[in-house]
Amino acid sequence: MKKEDLLATQERIAPYIHRTPVLTSRLLNEIAGADLYFKCENFQRMGAFKMRGAMNAVLQLSEEQKARGVVTHSSGNFAQALALAAQSIGVKAYIVMPENAPQVKKDAVKGYGGQIVECASTPIAREEVAEQVQKETGAYFIHPSNDREVILGQGTAALELLEDQPELTYIFSPVGGGGLIGGTALAAHYFERNCKVIGGEPFEADDAYRSLLSGQIESNDSTNTLADGLRTQLGDINFPIIQQYVDKIIRVEETEITSAMRLIWERMKIIVEPSSAVALAALLREKEEFAGQKIGVILSGGNIDVSKLPF
Amino acid sequence: MKKEDLLATQERIAPYIHRTPVLTSRLLNEIAGADLYFKCENFQRMGAFKMRGAMNAVLQLSEEQKARGVVTHSSGNFAQALALAAQSIGVKAYIVMPENAPQVKKDAVKGYGGQIVECASTPIAREEVAEQVQKETGAYFIHPSNDREVILGQGTAALELLEDQPELTYIFSPVGGGGLIGGTALAAHYFERNCKVIGGEPFEADDAYRSLLSGQIESNDSTNTLADGLRTQLGDINFPIIQQYVDKIIRVEETEITSAMRLIWERMKIIVEPSSAVALAALLREKEEFAGQKIGVILSGGNIDVSKLPF
Repeated sequence: MKKEDLLATQERIAPYIHRTPVLTSRLLNEIAGADLYFKCENFQRMGAFKMRGAMNAVLQLSEEQKARGVVTHSSGNFAQALALAAQSIGVKAYIVMPENAPQVKKDAVKGYGGQIVECASTPIAREEVAEQVQKETGAYFIHPSNDREVILGQGTAALELLEDQPELTYIFSPVGGGGLIGGTALAAHYFERNCKVIGGEPFEADDAYRSLLSGQIESNDSTNTLADGLRTQLGDINFPIIQQYVDKIIRVEETEITSAMRLIWERMKIIVEPSSAVALAALLREKEEFAGQKIGVILSGGNIDVSKLPF
Repeated sequence: MKKEDLLATQERIAPYIHRTPVLTSRLLNEIAGADLYFKCENFQRMGAFKMRGAMNAVLQLSEEQKARGVVTHSSGNFAQALALAAQSIGVKAYIVMPENAPQVKKDAVKGYGGQIVECASTPIAREEVAEQVQKETGAYFIHPSNDREVILGQGTAALELLEDQPELTYIFSPVGGGGLIGGTALAAHYFERNCKVIGGEPFEADDAYRSLLSGQIESNDSTNTLADGLRTQLGDINFPIIQQYVDKIIRVEETEITSAMRLIWERMKIIVEPSSAVALAALLREKEEFAGQKIGVILSGGNIDVSKLPF
């Protein structure tokens, strides 16, 4: 994936996404001891950066593929993103979701015109059902994070951030499946000479941290974290990018995620989901190292059930 | 209060306040059936429009008055606003607060350098204690809403909104003490030929609605509303402005306030306090009348205890 691919992606998806604002907060700068620039993907269409990757993927389908539709498996933001992206260009989207997924998420997917296909609540079941949908309908499978076009799409958030705020010395991103941090690392590599990318990951789902240590993809035995967007597994397309271009991954405790989320809510008056707060939590955990720097923080999304908060 | 006064106020306070953004939401436009422009005073310094009026008031003190300090009584946003405004120019602020005010609010006032003077939790007690502080210290009393300079300061939010979005046909504002809607009405009157101002007020504290009907200032027997910023009493400086320049006041139920607040939180991903949601709730209650219009909505503030939400 080259510099030109990122630029082409940015141009391709621009008409279909929001160019989200970059916000600052004097109070959070004081707390961090650094200058923070928050890229607000919580204000993105459907409420998360996932719209970027989904849009980039569907825009590159052939006419034949478009006629057959797309399929993915996700109980999270990518489900809504692919449904909305496909709807935006008149393509059918089949979304494989666990039968026990929250009704509010199913409703959101339906609201964006997605067709839900229910499956049992296991990783194997959802892959099997997605394959079955592919076979029956001819729909094109798009993985939520481990996909070239998805990674390039997610990288456009950091690309915009660097356009608005050049000379960042660090960008912090949460790490889940690896699409966002992978794309972010590519953007930083190609567009800002001295910008390092740091990942934030919950201790409770630290597959990427352990994978970097061991040099091979590790998996999570359990994923008991509030940061529901980060419970997913690192993929084989993302991993080499992360190995090559990510400086390090900082793990955080659940209480640190809650505190960082509350700080953002109370100080910045914006709603972010727990996964977004992981990036700030990682920065605050090791803030001495980053004192005085000019730092980008990607706030990945704002989809949370406001009647079920951790505080 | 003339056009020139508003312009002078805007220039005076500009270095001390944020020019807050105007946000839009496709989904809320669909729900309302109109084009909505939200003036986000929840992103204002200390989290509410009150900063504008407080700043304007302290900036016009004489050197002698500055030396003696300022005093107000408030358990809400004006307490923080006056503390921060005074601190911004090195003036002492005495804030009379009920002894049972939430600790989080007392801490915020202290954080902005305000000196808290506790009083019993009645309207009479707080006025008496404020008078006593005046006598003992020589501090200059600034009322939270019924004050010429405060009204002019609050009017700059609508002035900025109209600069960013000319040709609004309506602006909706919540109605509490009347400072915000009074200033808004002046700004609309002077700066947009065909812009009507509509107030939103809870049924549970509808003194302004009843005052407009009777032609004299009415008071609230009780103020049992979620919208804590709107529990205050209309004043005799605001009332004639509202009589002259406000088109009408729409009252809303508590459930409508909660629903409107939740809409803003979930759809716009921003945190507003219940008082802010009253303006949108009023619009939605009578949306047929405003269909297709270009409408400004003032989101007055974002100070809320996120661990005690109504949903």
